[in-house]
Amino acid sequence: MQSVIPVNLPQHSYNIAIAPGSLDQLGTWMQGTEAYPLKLGKKVLLVSNPTVFQHYGERAIASLEQAGFAVATCLLSDGERHKTLETLSQIYDAALTNRLERSSTFVALGGGIIGDMTGFAAATWLRGVNVVQVPTSLLAMVDAAIGGKTGVNHPNGKNLIGAFHQPRLVLIDPQVLQTLPVREFRAAIAEVIKYGVIWDADLFTQLEAAPQLDQLSNLSAELLQAMLTHSCQAKAHVVSKDEKEAGLRAILNYGHTIGHAVESLTGYQVVNHGEAVAIGMVAAAQIAVALQLWQGTDAQRQLKLLHNAHLPTRLPSGIDLDAILTSLQVDKKVEAGQVRFVLPTQIGAAIVTNQVSTTVIQQVLEHMQAV
Amino acid sequence: MQSVIPVNLPQHSYNIAIAPGSLDQLGTWMQGTEAYPLKLGKKVLLVSNPTVFQHYGERAIASLEQAGFAVATCLLSDGERHKTLETLSQIYDAALTNRLERSSTFVALGGGIIGDMTGFAAATWLRGVNVVQVPTSLLAMVDAAIGGKTGVNHPNGKNLIGAFHQPRLVLIDPQVLQTLPVREFRAAIAEVIKYGVIWDADLFTQLEAAPQLDQLSNLSAELLQAMLTHSCQAKAHVVSKDEKEAGLRAILNYGHTIGHAVESLTGYQVVNHGEAVAIGMVAAAQIAVALQLWQGTDAQRQLKLLHNAHLPTRLPSGIDLDAILTSLQVDKKVEAGQVRFVLPTQIGAAIVTNQVSTTVIQQVLEHMQAV
Ligand SMILES: NC(=O)c1ccc[n+]([C@@H]2O[C@H](COP(=O)([O-])OP(=O)(O)OC[C@H]3O[C@@H](n4cnc5c(N)ncnc54)[C@H](O)[C@@H]3O)[C@@H](O)[C@H]2O)c1
Ligand SMILES: NC(=O)c1ccc[n+]([C@@H]2O[C@H](COP(=O)([O-])OP(=O)(O)OC[C@H]3O[C@@H](n4cnc5c(N)ncnc54)[C@H](O)[C@@H]3O)[C@@H](O)[C@H]2O)c1
Ligand SMILES: [Zn+2]
Ligand SMILES: [Zn+2]
Repeated sequence: MQSVIPVNLPQHSYNIAIAPGSLDQLGTWMQGTEAYPLKLGKKVLLVSNPTVFQHYGERAIASLEQAGFAVATCLLSDGERHKTLETLSQIYDAALTNRLERSSTFVALGGGIIGDMTGFAAATWLRGVNVVQVPTSLLAMVDAAIGGKTGVNHPNGKNLIGAFHQPRLVLIDPQVLQTLPVREFRAAIAEVIKYGVIWDADLFTQLEAAPQLDQLSNLSAELLQAMLTHSCQAKAHVVSKDEKEAGLRAILNYGHTIGHAVESLTGYQVVNHGEAVAIGMVAAAQIAVALQLWQGTDAQRQLKLLHNAHLPTRLPSGIDLDAILTSLQVDKKVEAGQVRFVLPTQIGAAIVTNQVSTTVIQQVLEHMQAV
Repeated sequence: MQSVIPVNLPQHSYNIAIAPGSLDQLGTWMQGTEAYPLKLGKKVLLVSNPTVFQHYGERAIASLEQAGFAVATCLLSDGERHKTLETLSQIYDAALTNRLERSSTFVALGGGIIGDMTGFAAATWLRGVNVVQVPTSLLAMVDAAIGGKTGVNHPNGKNLIGAFHQPRLVLIDPQVLQTLPVREFRAAIAEVIKYGVIWDADLFTQLEAAPQLDQLSNLSAELLQAMLTHSCQAKAHVVSKDEKEAGLRAILNYGHTIGHAVESLTGYQVVNHGEAVAIGMVAAAQIAVALQLWQGTDAQRQLKLLHNAHLPTRLPSGIDLDAILTSLQVDKKVEAGQVRFVLPTQIGAAIVTNQVSTTVIQQVLEHMQAV
């Protein structure tokens, strides 16, 4: 059971490989094939954090060394508050100490934070070196590792400092998800359901066939493989058509308009990103139904999937509706004063619109208040 | 008297304009023409340092505001030791405080240091905003502002952190050179002579026609204009053929192989970059003559120009020849153990070779020792 998804971009094509057990073949994957050698140099800087490294560091290094790579390691502190320019300079220091060259490769072994920071370091070290993404969280597998967005946070805003830098390879070993905390798992399921709604009806029905989506052990290996493959395909497809975020990519923000507002108003503490997106998807679905863009029965099917994943589908208690409306106005997704929404039109398709009146938003939010 | 040099790149074409007095028209230049509006947004972040800003800041701002731009200013400390990630974060802070957007523009008003840092900040703020280069040092005008290389230093190495990011406009007002310290002026003349030797025989003979090249007041406005135009054309031509440094760009390193060694061995104190390049050009010329690639009479003509610019043409006293040879080996221009040299073959043309024996380098350096 193995899928390889080619991502074709004008200048930087690469493969996403999804293969159980592949962590132990990282070195061979990075060599490429005889017909298509990847030419990733000899020196590798493996970037990770202690949480992930304790589980998978040794196996990754062993595999790289067996394939002839010389490996240096750089461990960063775990957590979003360390996604800063300061932490970044630790990667640069390690690159210098270990004399990484233009032809060398950075390998990101970890969740989206490690992926984003390692990608940005690779984008800017010697004006650009190779990066290989080995995502270990479900969110990084289906979202962060794909598309070439990299970056760090500014003290006053997320991902404000960054660059587009495509990986040379994304290698996904689904087996590493066994150690992922269950709440991280569920949060990422929200993004998987998102792909089903906006892009891939087939994925959606496969998810519906599963009795439960709330933890890894409730998923068959086949469903997991299919889920990863479809999600990566969806994201890869969208970003290859729109590498630098001019248009189509916007549909990936389904659930994120109100999601971001909820996330930031609760101080990123009460709900995590995926949970906020789940809430945002319910809101967007209700708006689409209210505007007669989408069938109520389909919105119900989405709701059922979110329930099966044990994801929240109502607003956190105590949140102020007016605060949400104000927050939407200052969000960067505002276009000429009108809030931009992604709304489903059928399962597997969505549109982007700024034609949603405040009254509709308000009514939908009122119905979603905590019971 | 005004020259406009179009730089045509696959994705990011732009103009280099060289126009006396144009600082006062910065705003209008940034609007573009009716047929080709530049679309640089409404908000501008002007980045400079106190040295340059005291002379030209007010005029730049007045011109921008008159053209309808909203201007915020960010002043960085002057000097190479401030070309760091830390200083960079001051630009990010200013961008956030003043709510610069994706459609906004950073303007670099200063020498190569301001240009490189502002360019890098623009490359990475919101994953890329517009940058306009308004170089005020001769070196920035003829070299740093053109080609899209941007970056900052790592504590242990120059320009190790960076990105390629093309400006939307380079606006050169030669009149601002009046306040540039004479030693900075001369240092940049070394790079101008370099373009004459490796690329532009016409520039070379125009330089020969001037009795003195040692300070601005000894140059006619016509010669200055021609010098700037030819130099920018040379660099623009080379970099448009080779945006990401695959091949041709290497000839711009003429004089820089031994130059860098001299610069670093004297701790960047005794000779500055341009002076080191002058010394390196003499060495490369002698090597080319020794290998019968170049005529001795042409090497003499180059020597005369360097003298006319009051640039050094011998090694600094006390420098150790063996140290130079060792330094060449660790320099990044080494290819499979062989040092890479750019050698002239006639006035206006040069080749890149790694076929220079240590014996020849040694002999040439011995002849160049301080008297
Ligand atoms: N670049 C993009 O396009 C993009 C897209 C979405 C999100 N992101 C970014 O991704 C980040 C969030 O990513 P995330 O959700 O992976 O967070 P994360 O990187 O913090 O990982 C979540 C937690 O799980 C741990 N972990 C990861 N894999 C594990 C494993 N196999 N076993 C045990 N523990 C494991 C991590 O150490 C961390 O504590 C955010 O910073 C976000 O901005 C980027
Ligand atoms: N990006 C590239 O392709 C490239 C190429 C060459 C050099 N560089 C970089 O450029 C930098 C050197 O540039 P530089 O020589 O311009 O140094 P600089 O920026 O330090 O300027 C030299 C000095 O002159 C002052 N100055 C500048 N313009 C002035 C004016 N009109 N009047 C009075 N004072 C003025 C500056 O404040 C500074 O003190 C280095 O950091 C180097 O790495 C980059
Ligand atoms: Zn998301
Ligand atoms: Zn130089």
